[in-house]
Amino acid sequence: MPAYTTNMRLKFPIVALVLEIITIILFAVFVEYDDGKHHGHNEHDKHFNETHHEKASMDLYPMFQDVHVMIFIGFGFLMTFLKRYGFSSVGFNLLLAAFGLQWGLFMQGIWHMDNGKIKVNIFKMINADFSTATVLISFGAVLGKTSPVQLLIMTVLEITIFSINEHIVAELLRVSYDVGASIIIHAFGAYFGLAVARVLYRPGLRNGHENDGSVYHSDLFAMIGTVFLWMFWPSFNSAIADPGFTQLTAVINTYFSLAACVLSAYGISSLVEHKGKLDMVHIQNATLAGGVAVGTCADMNIGAFGAMLIGLVAGIISSQGFKHLSPILASHLGIQDTCGVHNLYGMPGILGGLAGIVAVALGKKRGVWAIFLNTKCDAAMQAAALASSLGFALVGGAVTGLIMKLPIWGQPPDKNCFNDSIYWEVPGEENESLAHSDHSKNKAEA
Amino acid sequence: MPAYTTNMRLKFPIVALVLEIITIILFAVFVEYDDGKHHGHNEHDKHFNETHHEKASMDLYPMFQDVHVMIFIGFGFLMTFLKRYGFSSVGFNLLLAAFGLQWGLFMQGIWHMDNGKIKVNIFKMINADFSTATVLISFGAVLGKTSPVQLLIMTVLEITIFSINEHIVAELLRVSYDVGASIIIHAFGAYFGLAVARVLYRPGLRNGHENDGSVYHSDLFAMIGTVFLWMFWPSFNSAIADPGFTQLTAVINTYFSLAACVLSAYGISSLVEHKGKLDMVHIQNATLAGGVAVGTCADMNIGAFGAMLIGLVAGIISSQGFKHLSPILASHLGIQDTCGVHNLYGMPGILGGLAGIVAVALGKKRGVWAIFLNTKCDAAMQAAALASSLGFALVGGAVTGLIMKLPIWGQPPDKNCFNDSIYWEVPGEENESLAHSDHSKNKAEA
Amino acid sequence: MPAYTTNMRLKFPIVALVLEIITIILFAVFVEYDDGKHHGHNEHDKHFNETHHEKASMDLYPMFQDVHVMIFIGFGFLMTFLKRYGFSSVGFNLLLAAFGLQWGLFMQGIWHMDNGKIKVNIFKMINADFSTATVLISFGAVLGKTSPVQLLIMTVLEITIFSINEHIVAELLRVSYDVGASIIIHAFGAYFGLAVARVLYRPGLRNGHENDGSVYHSDLFAMIGTVFLWMFWPSFNSAIADPGFTQLTAVINTYFSLAACVLSAYGISSLVEHKGKLDMVHIQNATLAGGVAVGTCADMNIGAFGAMLIGLVAGIISSQGFKHLSPILASHLGIQDTCGVHNLYGMPGILGGLAGIVAVALGKKRGVWAIFLNTKCDAAMQAAALASSLGFALVGGAVTGLIMKLPIWGQPPDKNCFNDSIYWEVPGEENESLAHSDHSKNKAEA
Repeated sequence: MPAYTTNMRLKFPIVALVLEIITIILFAVFVEYDDGKHHGHNEHDKHFNETHHEKASMDLYPMFQDVHVMIFIGFGFLMTFLKRYGFSSVGFNLLLAAFGLQWGLFMQGIWHMDNGKIKVNIFKMINADFSTATVLISFGAVLGKTSPVQLLIMTVLEITIFSINEHIVAELLRVSYDVGASIIIHAFGAYFGLAVARVLYRPGLRNGHENDGSVYHSDLFAMIGTVFLWMFWPSFNSAIADPGFTQLTAVINTYFSLAACVLSAYGISSLVEHKGKLDMVHIQNATLAGGVAVGTCADMNIGAFGAMLIGLVAGIISSQGFKHLSPILASHLGIQDTCGVHNLYGMPGILGGLAGIVAVALGKKRGVWAIFLNTKCDAAMQAAALASSLGFALVGGAVTGLIMKLPIWGQPPDKNCFNDSIYWEVPGEENESLAHSDHSKNKAEA
Repeated sequence: MPAYTTNMRLKFPIVALVLEIITIILFAVFVEYDDGKHHGHNEHDKHFNETHHEKASMDLYPMFQDVHVMIFIGFGFLMTFLKRYGFSSVGFNLLLAAFGLQWGLFMQGIWHMDNGKIKVNIFKMINADFSTATVLISFGAVLGKTSPVQLLIMTVLEITIFSINEHIVAELLRVSYDVGASIIIHAFGAYFGLAVARVLYRPGLRNGHENDGSVYHSDLFAMIGTVFLWMFWPSFNSAIADPGFTQLTAVINTYFSLAACVLSAYGISSLVEHKGKLDMVHIQNATLAGGVAVGTCADMNIGAFGAMLIGLVAGIISSQGFKHLSPILASHLGIQDTCGVHNLYGMPGILGGLAGIVAVALGKKRGVWAIFLNTKCDAAMQAAALASSLGFALVGGAVTGLIMKLPIWGQPPDKNCFNDSIYWEVPGEENESLAHSDHSKNKAEA
Repeated sequence: MPAYTTNMRLKFPIVALVLEIITIILFAVFVEYDDGKHHGHNEHDKHFNETHHEKASMDLYPMFQDVHVMIFIGFGFLMTFLKRYGFSSVGFNLLLAAFGLQWGLFMQGIWHMDNGKIKVNIFKMINADFSTATVLISFGAVLGKTSPVQLLIMTVLEITIFSINEHIVAELLRVSYDVGASIIIHAFGAYFGLAVARVLYRPGLRNGHENDGSVYHSDLFAMIGTVFLWMFWPSFNSAIADPGFTQLTAVINTYFSLAACVLSAYGISSLVEHKGKLDMVHIQNATLAGGVAVGTCADMNIGAFGAMLIGLVAGIISSQGFKHLSPILASHLGIQDTCGVHNLYGMPGILGGLAGIVAVALGKKRGVWAIFLNTKCDAAMQAAALASSLGFALVGGAVTGLIMKLPIWGQPPDKNCFNDSIYWEVPGEENESLAHSDHSKNKAEA
């Protein structure tokens, strides 16, 4: 049954290269450099074409690089916590994000063409990086249980669906109050991934897997991801904010929300364990929930203390979720969420969406948009944006999961899950190499 | 004797959450976004309120992020060199800095209120990050020998005392010549930590501890911290300098001081070992001494070669200190300085302070301040600033140490020092997991 | 025979400190801060002294820091893939780059003096960092087989030769179309290193060496280097581009070239292995070839799709090179290229040079230079630049190799190659320390 093999030799190169070649052709036809001269016939594309900072070509570049680090180092290393899945975590992360940013730039761009062309600039590159975040979040839910071909398929479909939902939320509902993307990226990516994980449910892993856990050093590698995500989250939440005071507000709110979230994540982690010890799972993940949850209202006038309250609550919800909710999701609903994306992105994303509804209802929105649109864009529209995003995520994720389930994509059998060696050439470990290599020094010390 | 338990289940969450809630309340009352409109009735707050780059809201953001990386990745990973204390190093570093930046913003801000409000902006966020550096330096001196509750207490007290000393130095003495904070952060943090370490002296560790050392990979993790600190130190020393040429001067001086320091640190490391081998302790630490030592006069007209001389000397002093002075401090003075902060921050900080006195005496100070203040701010004032900082550090550290010594904060017994497993859930190690996990590949190679 | 000892105790400190002191003296005589006021008598130094963004002192600082991260984290950790050579990889990288940036600033500066002075600014610091990249690339070819004294000698000579070639290419031939330095840095550094490696050929390593390979965690450390290089390559290729639209073009082209290169590197890696598994060597290296290859024409109007085509081809060439060409170079030509720099920098650098020739011939060059110089700087000049760079690299590398081969620099014997312990104090490994340290937890789990 060659269709069931996990040998990727033909199918993976073909899928990867064909996708890339198609993308290059699409770019040749549709993509141009943005020279700053917009034709302006497309009056409705305010969000994309008329924001003035888009024209100052390189101003956003440092922000872009911060986001870039979050996508490739942050997400990539955060998932290296598994003891034998580090190559795949950081390696597939690079693969999916590198393809995703090209696909995302195209899919987001086709809604905002200028004389039939997508004009690429730093602002659009930030949005392209953002679009890959949805895939990387979903990747966390199915980490260790999917082949690279399945993951590339997920990338194509998820970014396509994301772009449709983003367009609906941003253009049709005229809701643009999600500057840090709690709703359209974090909640969307989490529930999309959970839907995929549900469809790909593996009864054989009900009782766990010996490789579904960390070792000492893999937890330290994961902390590289955590800390870079934590540090640069203010850039994530403010990168596409209106420049000036609004952007500053988004930075400040995110900075303090994250800081408060650390205290509650640590506190709850110690509280829920009977010996009061801290759990690395909480520290690696729940400390970031404050960045997710403050996203929607990051650029609103909620006060630093308001942001800290959101962060405090997010840290509590997230760490509690890891402790109490994830086991229930796995055992009762058949959702095996490897990284606990429900706790890091799902619930905090919804919290962020709800906080946004409240903040908009209280009139905390800032900037020119508030004046221009305050009659149309009310709290109900925020709620509709949240509902749309969750709907697209769950339905889109379920459909995507069904396609990924076709037995031709090289999905690993249960026993080879969470193990790099099924898709990677894996070298031996330290202890073996040491036995041969370092005679003088180590033998003396042994 | 429940008071002597190291179980953190109640005391740590209570301390962490109560501190955070108090901080949120203080922020709700006192902290506002800085909208750039200052009332100006507070004529003396030139350093904080009238510097023009403070008003250009986002200009300093890339500098801020460099400093942010130093605080959270730099300090955090630098301390992961211990073989079994990586979780605590990077994890407690995150905890202390996340709380410290909130506390620091408040404690620094109350001296410079505008209509009863602390107006937060990027400039103040940089200073808040700076204030945490004092705690993280002191943390290095007591690394492995304190509970997270003790460390949170130290954070509160040290940042409070730091803010008082900073205010005295900056406002009362009218000395603002410490742009890179050799005196008020590095020397202060080091001697504060050494005083705490002296009070917490553990006779039981006189003959060392099996876990008080590195392994191969922990030394590589530490190099992540070293290199990020090394790279971004020019940002640390120039972030709050006057914009333009003065800031450029601070960047250039720090860049070349650090480069020269690498050569002397490597040279001396090889020279002091009878086989001429390099010692990772020196490489991880002494290479950074040039950044510390050039701090005070980083923005002065000392010439690139002057900066290089300072770096050269700092590298020599620092690596010699690790080799010869630290053992003496431990055995004769009862100062068990885990990370050798005396060599990395203490002596180079004093060297920086002395270099600043000489440079000011020689008229190397640059910028508007020099013209405005050159009659008042002479070399004697620089010396007074150094003396004040050392005095506050030693007395403040001793008092803080006495409070931390109270037997109710869960301090670890000697045998559990330098070991994550007393406060963390620690997974097994690679060798154990390998025995189960990777049958095919590793067995074949074994 | 003390001359043949690998004990570095005297020779290394003497070489390091003497080099540093000479450099400090040269800086004292020749180097000044750039205050933005140029005398302008030196009419031909357009590339260095009249570019207007050089005057806006701090504008380039975020770009500089990205390049700085590539040099110290990127190159340093990329080479930690060897199982027992991590200290040397990241440690010697720091040493060579720290000295090289000083030497490079001087050697590049003497061609462009202003009233007998080298005026240092951020632009020159970026170029100084660039000059060290040539050495770090060559270091990859001889990794594990040279002493730190040999490497310092190589640094002095290679940067000197690089500066001469750069001057010839930039000034005499009037070719400045190598914004991302595919030719003058990447191809130059690679072929220089290969020439050195050829001269230092070790027949004793013909059949490999037990330490010339990776272990699981060393491959993960290397990915830190890979990903930081990958992320910040757009900064490398655009840092010294003309500001504004041209710089934006360089960023966009590099971003998409790298993204496309990932897909082809992964695809080919899987295709060339009979089980279709990915090889970490390809992922760590070939994914970066797109950044190298697009360098020369990064700021030209080649279209995003043109950049993607270059990246696609570079990924294919590079990963094929690792698989098929490196073994042939080693066995037939006696070139033992530890890191495969021929595949990552050599061939992609030449590809970049050729792409530049084609692009210039097709009139894709942008900006004021194109208008000003389009009669002189044609495709033939591009070809001459490539030929000059390869010529200087091969001849310079061979001469440098002969000097390095003198039996007085402490070169390691074959059996001690690829092993930190010959030049470093190396601690024991996890397994040994664990046997003593963590009784409670680990024994229970064992």
